[in-house]
Amino acid sequence: MSKKNVYFFGGGKADGNESMKNLLGGKGANLAEMAGHPSLRLPVPPGFTITTEVCTYYYQNKKKYPAGLKEEVAKALKKVEAIMGKSFGDPSDPLLVSVRSGARKSMPGMMETVLNVGLTEKTIPGLIKQSGGNQRFVYDAYRRLMMMYSDVVMEKAAGIEPKDEMGIRRQLERIMDARKKERGVKNDVDLNVEDLKYLCAEFKKKIREVLGQEFPDDPMAQLWGGIGAVFSSWNGKRAVAYRNIEHIPHEWGTAVNVQTMVFGNMGNDSATGVAFTRNPGNGDAAFYGEYLVNAQGEDVVAGIRTPAPINQYSQSEHNKDLETLERKMPKVYKELFDIQKRLEKHYHDMQDIEFTIEKGRLFMLQCRIGKRNGPAAVKIATDMVKEKLIDKTTAVSRVTPEQLDELLHPIINPAEEKANKPMAKGLPAGPGAACGMIVFTSADAIRLSKEGKKVILVREETNPEDIDGMRAAEAILTARGGMTSHAALVARGWGKCCVVGCSALEIDLSKKEVEIEGAGALHEGEWITLNGTKGLVYKGQLKMMDASSENEILNEFLKICDGIRTLNIRTNADTPEDARKARQFGAEGIGLFRTEHMFYGKGSEEPLFKLRKMIMSSSLEERQKAVGELFGHVKSDIKATLEAMEGLPVTIRLLDPPLHEFVPHQQQARETLAGSLNISMEELEKRSDSLAESNPMMGHRGVRLGVTYPEVSEMQFRAILEAAAELLKAGKKVFPEIMIPVVCTVKELTDQLDIAKKVYAEVLNKFGLKKIDHMFGTMIEIPRAALVADKIAEVASFFSFGTNDLTQMTFGFSRDDIGAFLPEYLKKGILADDPFQTIDQEGVGELIATGINRGRKTNKKLKVGICGEHGGDPRSIGFCYRAGMNYVSCSPFRVPIARLAAARAVLANKTAKKGKKK
Amino acid sequence: MSKKNVYFFGGGKADGNESMKNLLGGKGANLAEMAGHPSLRLPVPPGFTITTEVCTYYYQNKKKYPAGLKEEVAKALKKVEAIMGKSFGDPSDPLLVSVRSGARKSMPGMMETVLNVGLTEKTIPGLIKQSGGNQRFVYDAYRRLMMMYSDVVMEKAAGIEPKDEMGIRRQLERIMDARKKERGVKNDVDLNVEDLKYLCAEFKKKIREVLGQEFPDDPMAQLWGGIGAVFSSWNGKRAVAYRNIEHIPHEWGTAVNVQTMVFGNMGNDSATGVAFTRNPGNGDAAFYGEYLVNAQGEDVVAGIRTPAPINQYSQSEHNKDLETLERKMPKVYKELFDIQKRLEKHYHDMQDIEFTIEKGRLFMLQCRIGKRNGPAAVKIATDMVKEKLIDKTTAVSRVTPEQLDELLHPIINPAEEKANKPMAKGLPAGPGAACGMIVFTSADAIRLSKEGKKVILVREETNPEDIDGMRAAEAILTARGGMTSHAALVARGWGKCCVVGCSALEIDLSKKEVEIEGAGALHEGEWITLNGTKGLVYKGQLKMMDASSENEILNEFLKICDGIRTLNIRTNADTPEDARKARQFGAEGIGLFRTEHMFYGKGSEEPLFKLRKMIMSSSLEERQKAVGELFGHVKSDIKATLEAMEGLPVTIRLLDPPLHEFVPHQQQARETLAGSLNISMEELEKRSDSLAESNPMMGHRGVRLGVTYPEVSEMQFRAILEAAAELLKAGKKVFPEIMIPVVCTVKELTDQLDIAKKVYAEVLNKFGLKKIDHMFGTMIEIPRAALVADKIAEVASFFSFGTNDLTQMTFGFSRDDIGAFLPEYLKKGILADDPFQTIDQEGVGELIATGINRGRKTNKKLKVGICGEHGGDPRSIGFCYRAGMNYVSCSPFRVPIARLAAARAVLANKTAKKGKKK
Repeated sequence: MSKKNVYFFGGGKADGNESMKNLLGGKGANLAEMAGHPSLRLPVPPGFTITTEVCTYYYQNKKKYPAGLKEEVAKALKKVEAIMGKSFGDPSDPLLVSVRSGARKSMPGMMETVLNVGLTEKTIPGLIKQSGGNQRFVYDAYRRLMMMYSDVVMEKAAGIEPKDEMGIRRQLERIMDARKKERGVKNDVDLNVEDLKYLCAEFKKKIREVLGQEFPDDPMAQLWGGIGAVFSSWNGKRAVAYRNIEHIPHEWGTAVNVQTMVFGNMGNDSATGVAFTRNPGNGDAAFYGEYLVNAQGEDVVAGIRTPAPINQYSQSEHNKDLETLERKMPKVYKELFDIQKRLEKHYHDMQDIEFTIEKGRLFMLQCRIGKRNGPAAVKIATDMVKEKLIDKTTAVSRVTPEQLDELLHPIINPAEEKANKPMAKGLPAGPGAACGMIVFTSADAIRLSKEGKKVILVREETNPEDIDGMRAAEAILTARGGMTSHAALVARGWGKCCVVGCSALEIDLSKKEVEIEGAGALHEGEWITLNGTKGLVYKGQLKMMDASSENEILNEFLKICDGIRTLNIRTNADTPEDARKARQFGAEGIGLFRTEHMFYGKGSEEPLFKLRKMIMSSSLEERQKAVGELFGHVKSDIKATLEAMEGLPVTIRLLDPPLHEFVPHQQQARETLAGSLNISMEELEKRSDSLAESNPMMGHRGVRLGVTYPEVSEMQFRAILEAAAELLKAGKKVFPEIMIPVVCTVKELTDQLDIAKKVYAEVLNKFGLKKIDHMFGTMIEIPRAALVADKIAEVASFFSFGTNDLTQMTFGFSRDDIGAFLPEYLKKGILADDPFQTIDQEGVGELIATGINRGRKTNKKLKVGICGEHGGDPRSIGFCYRAGMNYVSCSPFRVPIARLAAARAVLANKTAKKGKKK
Repeated sequence: MSKKNVYFFGGGKADGNESMKNLLGGKGANLAEMAGHPSLRLPVPPGFTITTEVCTYYYQNKKKYPAGLKEEVAKALKKVEAIMGKSFGDPSDPLLVSVRSGARKSMPGMMETVLNVGLTEKTIPGLIKQSGGNQRFVYDAYRRLMMMYSDVVMEKAAGIEPKDEMGIRRQLERIMDARKKERGVKNDVDLNVEDLKYLCAEFKKKIREVLGQEFPDDPMAQLWGGIGAVFSSWNGKRAVAYRNIEHIPHEWGTAVNVQTMVFGNMGNDSATGVAFTRNPGNGDAAFYGEYLVNAQGEDVVAGIRTPAPINQYSQSEHNKDLETLERKMPKVYKELFDIQKRLEKHYHDMQDIEFTIEKGRLFMLQCRIGKRNGPAAVKIATDMVKEKLIDKTTAVSRVTPEQLDELLHPIINPAEEKANKPMAKGLPAGPGAACGMIVFTSADAIRLSKEGKKVILVREETNPEDIDGMRAAEAILTARGGMTSHAALVARGWGKCCVVGCSALEIDLSKKEVEIEGAGALHEGEWITLNGTKGLVYKGQLKMMDASSENEILNEFLKICDGIRTLNIRTNADTPEDARKARQFGAEGIGLFRTEHMFYGKGSEEPLFKLRKMIMSSSLEERQKAVGELFGHVKSDIKATLEAMEGLPVTIRLLDPPLHEFVPHQQQARETLAGSLNISMEELEKRSDSLAESNPMMGHRGVRLGVTYPEVSEMQFRAILEAAAELLKAGKKVFPEIMIPVVCTVKELTDQLDIAKKVYAEVLNKFGLKKIDHMFGTMIEIPRAALVADKIAEVASFFSFGTNDLTQMTFGFSRDDIGAFLPEYLKKGILADDPFQTIDQEGVGELIATGINRGRKTNKKLKVGICGEHGGDPRSIGFCYRAGMNYVSCSPFRVPIARLAAARAVLANKTAKKGKKK
C-alpha cells in the first residue's frame, strides 16, 4: 500500500495527475490534472482526494481507516483553507466542502454525494455575512445539507434499511410538501426565508425522532460522516449490482473527493453553466453552451428557468432574447473561452465543461470528454485530423459504428420524439425513421404510393410476394417474425425503416384494421411514425430530420477509415440498382448476388412465372423446356449487374432456396400456371404438395437442386459465362465468381464443376474467346463443410461463409422459429447476444476458423469472405478480420458502417496485441 | 525376382504351400497345401503353378517370358506325367491338362480358363481307348476345347476385339444351335457322337475362315497358348475394371495353374460332387453334400439332373430315393469322409470341397472356406470353440452382424422367395419377413387383428397417431419416407418387419385400394408378403421360416462376444415391455427412454389428452394445472420402467419433440380438447397455428421447452425422482440418469440443473431419504454442443450422442426430406453411405471425437454413450469403440447384434494396431 493516502489539488498545484485514475479515481485524477498540469493550472476550487487504496484498506480492516489518515486529511484541509482564505468551521468566514465518490470507471448515480459540509448553527451567521446578507441562500443550503446528510450518512451508511416510504428523506420531503401546500406555492424556489428557517427546525426534530440521534453540528463530524458514507456506498446494493453487470471488479474501491464549495447563486454577479468546446449536435468547431445567473448546477438541470446562451453562436429559437455571458460578463467569458481552448488542446478531444462564477470569480468544476451525436462525432473527428489535433487512427477510434449509422438515415426530430409516447414496441429491424399512412396489403401499398401517398405496410408477416408493396412503402411494420425474418432481411438490405415482431398488434385484414394493445384500433389511411432504430411505433405524423446532409464530411471520414482497414468491403446486391447504390457507398465488389431474387419485384411477373413453370415440371423434358425459357431472363439480369460492377468482382450464387418457396399461393396465379403447364388443378396441387418439406431449411435446396437437376445448374453457368463473354466482347472488364451454395462434401462441388467446365468450353467456343476471367467457389454454411474445408479448397477457389445458415445449423436454431424461445434466452442470459445478429465466436466462430485454416492448408491462395447478415455487424466484422478473411459483404446501406468497423478492427487488434505484450 | 518360376504339386509333395499366396496365387497355394502338407497329402490331380512374378516379368518385358521358363515347365510336366503314368501328347494314353488363372485375391470370372488342353487329332484315339471306347465323351471334350481355345486364346489373347455378335465363340455356338434344330433336340447332352464329330469338323473350318489360322493340333502349342491367354487376361478390360473397383493393385499379377484333367464322366464308376464339412444351412456338425454319377462339375451346376445325397444325413425330400455315395461307393466315401475330417482340422474352419471320382479313383479338386447362412455361422463358431478347434476371438471373427441378424427374425422360405418375383421394391426399414392382409388404416388394423387376422398396414406415411395400428399389424409398408421416417424408426425399435419409401405404390384411401406400378390394384384383405431385410414386396402368402429356433446356441455365442467386448450395450426402450425384452436380449441398461413416447399406444387416450391440454395452454396458470394432471401418469410410467430395469441404469430424456407434433389432427379429438380447455374451436385453431413452425426440427423443442416452461421440466424431474424414491423405499435399486436434450450451451444445462436440485431436495425431504442415486447429463446432438463440450462437461455427468440430430445439423439434412436427393447422392457416389444409417466418420465423427475429448478434459469421469439409430449399426459401433465411448444404445432387437459388433470392434482394432506395428 502506498504511504500517501491523501492527494491535494488547488492553487495551480496538484499532488496527482490524469494518469493516476486507478489511485485517485476518474474524477480525482481529472481535478488534479486541471488544477496542477503546467499547461492548464485552471481555477479549480481547491480540495483533496482520499485514494481508492484507503477504500480497499477500509474493507479489509473491518471498516477502519489506515493510521495517519486523519492527520493527512487535516493537513490537506489546512492547505485548502490557506488558498481560500477561509477556515473550516470558522464562524465568521466558514469554508464549506462537498464530499463525492470517484471510482476508476464512472458508475453514474450508484454512489453517494454530500454537499455543503461544514454548515452548522455556528457557521450560519458567517456565511450569511459572506453572502452579503443572503439568508435565504444560507438556510436553503442548510436544509439541503440536512436532507442529504440524514439520508446518506445517518440512515444509509448506518445500515438502516427502512422501506422507501418510511425513509428519512421521504419524511423530510413530506414536511416540505406540507409547508408548500400551506403556503400555496408550487416550487422550492418560492419558499421564503421564514419557510426555510421553519423547515430547518422541523427537519432537526424529525431526524431526532426518526433516527434517534441529533443532526451533527460539528463540521469535522460532518466531514468524516460524509467520507464514511461514500466508502460505505461502494458496497451498497445498487453499486454492487451495477459492478456485476458492468464487470467492474469489486476490489477496485472508490476514492473520495473533498472539494471547496463554490456558489453560483450568491447574487447577480454569480452564475453557473455547462459548455462544450464544439457543438455536440453537429460538430461545428465553435464554443457552445448555456448558463444561468444566480443559480446552482441543479437549477440548470431542473429546467424551470430557461438558460441563456453563453455566446451568439449558442443562440436558439428559445433563448435568443436572453443576454449572453459574453455580453453580461465579458471578462469572465474571455477567461472561460481561453480555458476551453486550452482544455481541447490539452485533451485532444471535444470537452464537456462545468463552471461556476461566484461573485465574479470563475471556477472550473469539471471537464470530461463530451458526448456527441453521430453527425458531430464524424465531423469532429474529421476536422481534428485536418487541424492536426489528432491522427487518423485516433479519428477512427472516436466514431462508433452506431454513430455513423445515424448519418445514414432520417431520424425523428429528437424533441418531437421526447414529447410523444410510443404506442407499441417491436424489434428494430430496419434503421432510421419513417411516417406514413397504414396499409394492410401489398396491392394497397403500390396503389396509394402511385398516387403519391406515403404509406407504411402493416402485416402479420411478409413473404416474397409482398416485395413490390414493401418497396413502395416508406416502412414496414409486422406483428410477427424476428430480426432475421423476411421483412427484416429485405428492409435492412434496402436500408429501409422496419419494425418487426411487434406482438401488441392484432391485425384484422378483412376490416383493414389493426388493434393495438392499450392504444385501440387504427384503420387504413391513419398516420403512424416508426423509429426503426429503436423499434418504436408512434401514433400520428411526427416531424422528421434528415441527418445525412453531411455527406462530404462523411466521405472524408470514410476515406480515413479506408486508409487503415485491410479487409475489403463488398455488398450483397441482387439488382443493378442496388449494385450502383452500394458502389456509391464504397463497395468494392458484390459478395452475394442471389439468383433467386431476380424473380421478384420486377414489375413484370414473367420471369417469376417461368421459374414457377420450371419448378412445377415433373419430367426432365418439361423442365428442360422451362429452363430454356428462363435462360434469357437470367442472363440479362446477371449481365446488367456485372456491367454495373464493371471492374469489380461479383459473386453470383446459384439458385438456393427450397423450391416450394416459389410455388404461388394465389388462386389466380395457380390457375394460370396449371393452364400453361397444361395440367389440371388437381395435378398442380399434387406437384405442389410433393415439394412441401418438413424442414425446408435442411431439405432439397442449394447444390442439392444442382445435383438432382443438373440442367438447372447448366442453364445458370451458361447465363453467367455468356453474360461475361458479351461484356468482354464489348470491351468491359468483369469478374464473375460462381458460387455453389449448401455444400457439405467436395464431391458435390466436383459434380457441379464438371458441368461448369463443359459449359465454359462451349461458351469460349461460341464467342471465339480464349479465356473468360471467372472463379468457381462455394459457400461454407453447413457445419460439415467447415470440417472438410481442406478437401473442398482443393476444388474451390474461394469460400464465402454463409453465417446465417451456419448459425442455424451450428445451434440447431431455425431463424424463423426462434421467436418462441430466443427472447427468454436473452432475458435469462443463457445467450449474451442473438447469434443471428452477432457471430457466436465460441461455436460458429470456431467452425469459421477451422474452415479458413483447413482451407488455406490445401489452397494457399484461397479467397475468403462472409456474406451472411453478420457481414454488416461491427462486432462480427472485428471477428472476420481476426479470423483472416479477405472481405466482408453486407447490404448496400451497411457498407459505410463496414468500412468504419473494418478500420476499427485493425486498431482493436493492435491494442489487444499491445495488451498481450504487457 | 525369385529364381524359381514353376512350383510343382502332386503325388503327396508340393514345392509351395498355403502361405505363398502372393507368389502362387490363392488357388495355387491351396492346391500345393492340399497336395503337399504332411498332414494332408490329398489325392490332388498333379500339376504345377507358374508364379505371379512371371506375370509381372511378362508385362515389364514386352510380353516375353523369363529365360529358362520353358525348361522349368517341361520339367514339371515330366513329373506330372510320371505320377499319372501318362504322357502329354501320347497318342495311346494322352495326359490332358487344364490351364487356369489364380491371383492373390479371388477375381471370380474376370480371367480366362482353358480345359482339355492336350487333345488333338493324334491323341483322340488314345483317349477313346482309355475311356473304354466312349467316343461321345471324347468328341464332346474336343468341341469344348475348340470353343474355349478359339475364343480365349486365338481371338482374345491375340487382341482381336470383334463385336459380341461377331465373336468366334458366338459363331461356333450358332453352328451348334443350327445342328440341334436340325436334329430336333434341345440340350447339348442330346447330341450324339455323329453330331459332335460333325461339329468338330465344322468348328475347325469356321475357325480357319474367321480367324485366318488353323486350330493348333500340337499339344505344346495348345499349352503355351493357354498360358499366354491367362497372363493376357490379367490386363483384360473386365479384370482391370474389377481391380479398380476392388482396389486390387495392378502390379500384383496372376499365377497360372496347369493341372491334370480328371473326368467324372467316364462311366458309372466315375462321379463328381460338392460337399461341406458341416451343414452350411444350419451348422450341424455333419458331413453334408451331393454328387452325380458319370458327370462333370458343370453338370451339377446346370441343374438338369437331380444330384444324389452323399450320405443319409444329406438326404432331403427331393433326393431321398437316390442312392447315397456311401452305399454306392463305400470305399471312396470312406476316403472322402476321412479327407474332409482332416481338412477341417487342418484349416480350423468348415470347408467347401469339390471332388471327382474317375473310374473309382478319388481326386480332390478344390477346398475353400465354406459359405454359410447366419444360423450355421453361429452354431459352427460356437461348436468349434467347444471342440477346441478355434479360440473365442476366432469364433467372433467368423460371424458377421448380418449373419447374426438372420437368427433374430423369421424369413421367407428361400425356395419360395426364389420362385416368386417381387411386385415392388422399397427401403429395407425393419428386418425379417411377414405376410398378412392389406389394411389401410390404423383402426382397421386394430379391428382385424382383434379378430385374429394377420394384417399389414399399408400407408402413405405413418405418424404417431398410427402407433396402435402399427403395433397390431404384422408389418408396415409405406409409400413415402426414408430409413429414418417415423414408420422405419418405430418398426426397427420393435424389431418389426417394415418396408418404407416404396414409391411404386399409389394409395387410394377412399377406395381402400393400392395401385402398384406394373402389378395392378390390390384391395383391403388381399394377401401380401414383405421381405423387410431386402425391402421387397410380394403378392400373396409366401411360406415363412423361423430362423431363431437356435436360441441356446445364440446365447452361448453371445456370451463369447461378451467376454471380448468392452463397450456396454444398452437399449432404447420407452415401455416396461420393451425394457424387459431388451433385458432378455442382454441389454445392460436403457440408454434412451423417451418421455414423449409414453403418451402413445397405451390403449387409453387419457395421458395423451392431458399432454395435449398442457401443450394448448396459453397461460402459466392453465399450463400448471395441466402439468399437475400429467404428473401421475409420467411418474407411474417411469416407475414401471425403472422397476423393469432394476439394478441397471436408465437414461430418461425429458420431453423433446416440437410441441406441434402432439396437436391432434382429428376433428373429434380437437373438439373434445377445446371443450376441456373451455375455449372455442377458433381459439384452439389459433393456438394450434401459433405452435406451427417453419423448421420444427430446429425450433422450440428439447431444453428450449424446459427453459421457456420451467414448470414442465420441474414436473418431470419430480416424476423421475419420486418414482426412484418409491422404489428405493420398496428396497429396489434403481439408477435413473436424467438427460436434457437439444443443448447448445452449458447455460441451458445449469438453468435446468437449478430446477432439478430444488426438486431433489424437496423429494429427499418428502420421502425422508438422504440420497437417491441419480445422474444429470445431456444429449450431444447440436454441433455447437460438441464444440463447447469442455464447458458442458463441467455440469453434465454423462454425454449421450444423439447422432440422428447431430447428423441432421452437421449435414444440414432433414431426415424427413432427404428422399428428394439422397438416392441421387448415393447413386452418383457423392456420399458412400446414408449418413443416417452409418455414422459419417469424417464429419459427424470428428464432432463426436471432439465432444468426447473436450468433455473428458474437464470431467475425467464423464460417461459417454450413443443413443441415435447408429447405436445398432455394426460399422458405427466400431467407430464408437475407437472413439472411446462407454456404451452404445440401440433398439431391443439390435442388442444381440450390438454385442457381437462390440466384440468384433475389439478384434478389428487389435488387427489394425498389429498392421500398424508392421
